[in-house]
Amino acid sequence: MTDPILPSWRPGPTRDAIVDFLAAAGEIPPEQRIAVFDNDGTLWCEKPRYTQLDFLIWQLQRSIAEQPDLDDVPEYAAVLSGDHAAIADFGLERVAVALLSLFESIEPEVFEQRVRTFFAETRHPDHDRPYDRMVYQPMLELLGVLASRGFSNCIVSGGGTEFVRAISHRVYDVPQERVVGTLVTYRLEVRGGRPVLLRTAAVQGKLNEGGAKIENIQTALGRRPLLAAGNSPGDADMLEYANTGELPNLALLVNHDDDQREYAYDGVAGSFDSEERTQETAARLGWSQISMKDDWAIVFPER
Amino acid sequence: MTDPILPSWRPGPTRDAIVDFLAAAGEIPPEQRIAVFDNDGTLWCEKPRYTQLDFLIWQLQRSIAEQPDLDDVPEYAAVLSGDHAAIADFGLERVAVALLSLFESIEPEVFEQRVRTFFAETRHPDHDRPYDRMVYQPMLELLGVLASRGFSNCIVSGGGTEFVRAISHRVYDVPQERVVGTLVTYRLEVRGGRPVLLRTAAVQGKLNEGGAKIENIQTALGRRPLLAAGNSPGDADMLEYANTGELPNLALLVNHDDDQREYAYDGVAGSFDSEERTQETAARLGWSQISMKDDWAIVFPER
Repeated sequence: MTDPILPSWRPGPTRDAIVDFLAAAGEIPPEQRIAVFDNDGTLWCEKPRYTQLDFLIWQLQRSIAEQPDLDDVPEYAAVLSGDHAAIADFGLERVAVALLSLFESIEPEVFEQRVRTFFAETRHPDHDRPYDRMVYQPMLELLGVLASRGFSNCIVSGGGTEFVRAISHRVYDVPQERVVGTLVTYRLEVRGGRPVLLRTAAVQGKLNEGGAKIENIQTALGRRPLLAAGNSPGDADMLEYANTGELPNLALLVNHDDDQREYAYDGVAGSFDSEERTQETAARLGWSQISMKDDWAIVFPER
Repeated sequence: MTDPILPSWRPGPTRDAIVDFLAAAGEIPPEQRIAVFDNDGTLWCEKPRYTQLDFLIWQLQRSIAEQPDLDDVPEYAAVLSGDHAAIADFGLERVAVALLSLFESIEPEVFEQRVRTFFAETRHPDHDRPYDRMVYQPMLELLGVLASRGFSNCIVSGGGTEFVRAISHRVYDVPQERVVGTLVTYRLEVRGGRPVLLRTAAVQGKLNEGGAKIENIQTALGRRPLLAAGNSPGDADMLEYANTGELPNLALLVNHDDDQREYAYDGVAGSFDSEERTQETAARLGWSQISMKDDWAIVFPER
């Protein structure tokens, strides 16, 4: 039977667990009602590449049109020629950091505008719709019902904080201060007598994956979440943290098992050393597993 | 004439500036309506000592009752004997960091509970009321009207983030994620098979004063504030940042000139090297100056 508040969720133990959690949460003081969601692969599609990586490549192509000698940077050359072996040799992190330097010394508002332009001008390569319509309809419904029950929804992403913030309000109704991701550092300059904040290419602290997600949830949000949703070993620590608090809680693990409507793949390793260990923890703690194939009546919103 | 929404504000140019700003802000998209407030000396009283310092001393007295040899720590001995010369020689920052180690290796929830116990069990030394009733009634009214107009009120304090968070919701109706202060770092341990987050005694990054307030506003809140209120040179950068954006904005500087109802003193120096430079910037940019003596009909709430 269709649930009126979660119409895209098929009946079954996962939907039941959500409904039970919502009932239990009614007893919890509203200021403790915190829900955290990983973004890539949990709220929106992360294949064939992370959306943020496609954004960085898009920026590289624009930059190189104006400044052709950027092609001399080996990481850029590898990206532009689609040399997957070279990218793998560098490692995705090194490539991403090299690409971040394309935004060095610009103000945050300018960065935000570029992200918005990217979303307005590009389309997902396989699904021929804007990247920000590659969100999962069932998760949008879950965000909606949580917000209506007094929850503060938060995004806790391994991706760039400012990248996600540029769309969080419009796409997820999540305000910028509730986006916790990987941050760049800023530097302050005085220009024309006024203070100007500029991006650097340096990452601030650790990448927001694995145990760092727990630390950053505390420093950014100030309390333990009651609901945590993720899809990869990099989310497992966060799910375990939510799931071992003293208040009613819910850990949701999205499994990508639908190669017809989305993609079928295992999560990549984070601080949990393998998908296997994630699955073992999920089984031990009784996490609710979402089968995209079986639990979701539709995956993406109507166009 | 009394203003129905700001009844504790006397008529005059400061109240007029607030009313004008509120009218102008109605045209701004709600997600851009960000107001930031310094805490000590701006939202609540910071004399004769910072409330957080009294909290740390309270904790030291409790710790030393159980562990008398803590008295051997020179910074602690100076604090306990009220040796102001020795404290000045160490510097307040070094003393505060030494006191922070009293909370090493405890979970954030335990720290929060200690702060709450402090507020429940102690009273302000001069005013004989709980410290959390040493808030300024006119500023509570300002927070209230801003919230009712769709603003997200945020606290941007030089004090400890987690200290302020323990009371921000109850005292100011500000959720924990909108408190931006000086952070300690955390470390993660596995205890009994579950992840446990523990405080360290190390400060994360810079103290949240001066230019650091601008950087931390961006990293924590993701956009430039439209209203900024402060009282010391350590707030001047933040006020200047709000005041030089492109949208309608308001910078408010609280001047402590009421030795009858509160205290009369100049703000202490932050990155703005002197009160003089703060006043020069205030005059140049036309900041609204709050005279506690003249602009506020009452200072503290009814008991």
